[in-house]
Amino acid sequence: MSDFEGVLDAVRERVDPTPDERRALAEAAERLADRAREAIAELPVEADVLQVGSTARGTWVAGDRDIDLFVRFPADLPREQLQEYGLEVGNEVLPAGREEYAEHPYVKGSFEGYDVDLVPCYRLEDATDIQSAVDRTPFHNAYLEQRLSDADAGDVRLFKQFLKGIGAYGSDLRTQGFSGYLTELLVLEYGGFRETLEAIRDWAPPVVLDPEDHAEAEFDDPLVVVDPTDPERNVAAVVSAENVARVQHHAREFLADPDESVFEPTTPEPLSEEAVREHVEARGTTPLAVVFEAPDLVEDQLYPQLYRSRDGLVRGLEIEGFEVLRAATWADDRAVLFAELSVSELPAVERHEGPPVHVGGHAQGFYEKYADGDAAGPFLDGDRYVVEREREVTTAEEFVRDQLGEVALGAHVESIVEAGDYDVLAGDEVAALADGFGTELAEYFEPTV
Amino acid sequence: MSDFEGVLDAVRERVDPTPDERRALAEAAERLADRAREAIAELPVEADVLQVGSTARGTWVAGDRDIDLFVRFPADLPREQLQEYGLEVGNEVLPAGREEYAEHPYVKGSFEGYDVDLVPCYRLEDATDIQSAVDRTPFHNAYLEQRLSDADAGDVRLFKQFLKGIGAYGSDLRTQGFSGYLTELLVLEYGGFRETLEAIRDWAPPVVLDPEDHAEAEFDDPLVVVDPTDPERNVAAVVSAENVARVQHHAREFLADPDESVFEPTTPEPLSEEAVREHVEARGTTPLAVVFEAPDLVEDQLYPQLYRSRDGLVRGLEIEGFEVLRAATWADDRAVLFAELSVSELPAVERHEGPPVHVGGHAQGFYEKYADGDAAGPFLDGDRYVVEREREVTTAEEFVRDQLGEVALGAHVESIVEAGDYDVLAGDEVAALADGFGTELAEYFEPTV
Repeated sequence: MSDFEGVLDAVRERVDPTPDERRALAEAAERLADRAREAIAELPVEADVLQVGSTARGTWVAGDRDIDLFVRFPADLPREQLQEYGLEVGNEVLPAGREEYAEHPYVKGSFEGYDVDLVPCYRLEDATDIQSAVDRTPFHNAYLEQRLSDADAGDVRLFKQFLKGIGAYGSDLRTQGFSGYLTELLVLEYGGFRETLEAIRDWAPPVVLDPEDHAEAEFDDPLVVVDPTDPERNVAAVVSAENVARVQHHAREFLADPDESVFEPTTPEPLSEEAVREHVEARGTTPLAVVFEAPDLVEDQLYPQLYRSRDGLVRGLEIEGFEVLRAATWADDRAVLFAELSVSELPAVERHEGPPVHVGGHAQGFYEKYADGDAAGPFLDGDRYVVEREREVTTAEEFVRDQLGEVALGAHVESIVEAGDYDVLAGDEVAALADGFGTELAEYFEPTV
Repeated sequence: MSDFEGVLDAVRERVDPTPDERRALAEAAERLADRAREAIAELPVEADVLQVGSTARGTWVAGDRDIDLFVRFPADLPREQLQEYGLEVGNEVLPAGREEYAEHPYVKGSFEGYDVDLVPCYRLEDATDIQSAVDRTPFHNAYLEQRLSDADAGDVRLFKQFLKGIGAYGSDLRTQGFSGYLTELLVLEYGGFRETLEAIRDWAPPVVLDPEDHAEAEFDDPLVVVDPTDPERNVAAVVSAENVARVQHHAREFLADPDESVFEPTTPEPLSEEAVREHVEARGTTPLAVVFEAPDLVEDQLYPQLYRSRDGLVRGLEIEGFEVLRAATWADDRAVLFAELSVSELPAVERHEGPPVHVGGHAQGFYEKYADGDAAGPFLDGDRYVVEREREVTTAEEFVRDQLGEVALGAHVESIVEAGDYDVLAGDEVAALADGFGTELAEYFEPTV
């Protein structure tokens, strides 16, 4: 038996649900469906109940305890009614549950130790008629149930665990990784776990897969998997270039040298304040951190705002002439925009280029504006007027303290910054972040693929 | 009388030679030509004598004391003979003169207080048959003599003095400005001094003039004046974009507000050491100077090497990550390469980008090279591997002390640098250059158009 197969056997031991686990889950799901059907019977409309997701298809990784039940209402039911009836059924089935709002409301709760989502949707003939993303789920479920063999399901579990191990599993907007559905489509497309890794190793992005050969749109993503149930949708749209590269890297490494550890997510030891100071000292850079109370948003809203704010901060610093070596953003109760500068101080003067001398009025205006001022020049560089004028801010810290509101920030972050409700840590002071963000700082200063 | 005409009248007073000056010069030139003809009579070949240049055409500015005499030999005379006979005539006419070497040898000397060049060339039918640049001069002379009126000559003198005043007169490789011949062609083309300034004010480079409408080449210069005697030559090839812009700027200013001072070259007061230190302090920059004994070359060879070395230094610093605000080069007995840095210190680490992960062997090689080293990473940025590795030099001064030989330098400068025969001044230390380069430092720190 090869190393490869040996490793997989060991991983299967951990990821394949036992017959007891399967049976227990199936029975719990059936009891839930029964309760849902009873609740539906009280309603003035017809509806059916459908178990979907990985626990419906046998592709869940042992230990996952998610049950997804969809309640399908007739396509002609007004949306307000669908929401009202959906929540009614949900509250009946999960009396201790709470209402959640994705694209439309559903109920989330606990049942016999399982995490249950009870979601109302429309029963449609064709996936292209969907009114919201949840309406698509039953089509995905049907497509996969028809095609996935038990062996495929085992390989899906391996691939999911592989993606979890490398941190690329999850289509949430923080991770920007591979969804469960995408994972299953890839294993189906390539024919197994090994085949999937081998194909991924040889990818040359952009990679386009179209299992039903029915694409009706162009996609500008590094990985495109055309949804078998919707020719206009890329199932992998959310996957970042970095996660495509990450899975390629680990596929290549694992195929060359199979090692069980890749299946286990690793979290580095948190850095101490002292260790952060040592890193900063050794690197000779100037880190800056903007710290504020995290806005009260779900992760799928929070992280896009933080990413946008981090990028805006970097761009703002760079436009001002400061140089950013690397940047990051983290959140728990507090949120942090972190930028590590390789150039954080600039001289009192900056070059300011005017128009070419031959551009009539504009050139004359520039010349006259600066001719009698404090700036050095105007003088000529090639065909242009140039002056060296006083710089508004000469340190990155000043910029972040005084002009952060001028960069592109996420909406909630912008409000916080405009209200001045943020602290700035500069240089050594960022060591204080070790209290709360020690793990993130370890990942930052000792980065891996 | 307008301000404009009033100013010109005052300038004419200074630049128009008096009748006495004209007569004295004509008589001296005639005596020189006689002596040359006597010397030619001793030779076994025919030759004639031709006075050329501004003093032959009446376009010299009062006080200039240059007489150019060309001795024209038959076109079939071998080059060695031409050179031998040419020097023979020259030494006969100017016994105290010395032999000089441009494209070919000639004799330079003093006669009755005039600076005389006595140059041998070929007598040719057509300017396109020329064997060296000096053979072209008689054609230029004939072309202009046929066309320039006395009034034109007066306007040429005004335009020359204007160009001298703004520092754009001279086709030498240090100045990269307007030659006498070019000045005369422009006044002829536009019809007078005022018309020339008005045309220049409205230039939108690239400007192409072709008085004889016979261009046979494409030119990639901001100013093109096709030589009336050679359809393949741009008379203005040497004029820099900066000098085109400079004359445009001053034409616009002078036409709007005629002021006699523009006709007078200005030299700023030299800066003291203390003043240099104050400028550096106020600007907050880090100046660096590389100082060495100037190589023993004529200016037309020295300055191109210095310009090339200055540009190589700037590029070298920038590639290393340092930022240059402005740079310059100066020479007397010593030569200086001067670079003023806005960023002269960088951290211990630098970002080093690897290939995209999908580029098979190359990517794997990069990963393996850095995986076990001291660099931070490899990690991912987008689809690429990146590491942060130790930087070789962290200050611009170190770079100039240790790696100056690696940048593109002029040939003689390169030898000097390779031999280590140079000093480096950094920061405040450049104030010492005030001893010898005070004027240049004044022009640098208080620049004008």
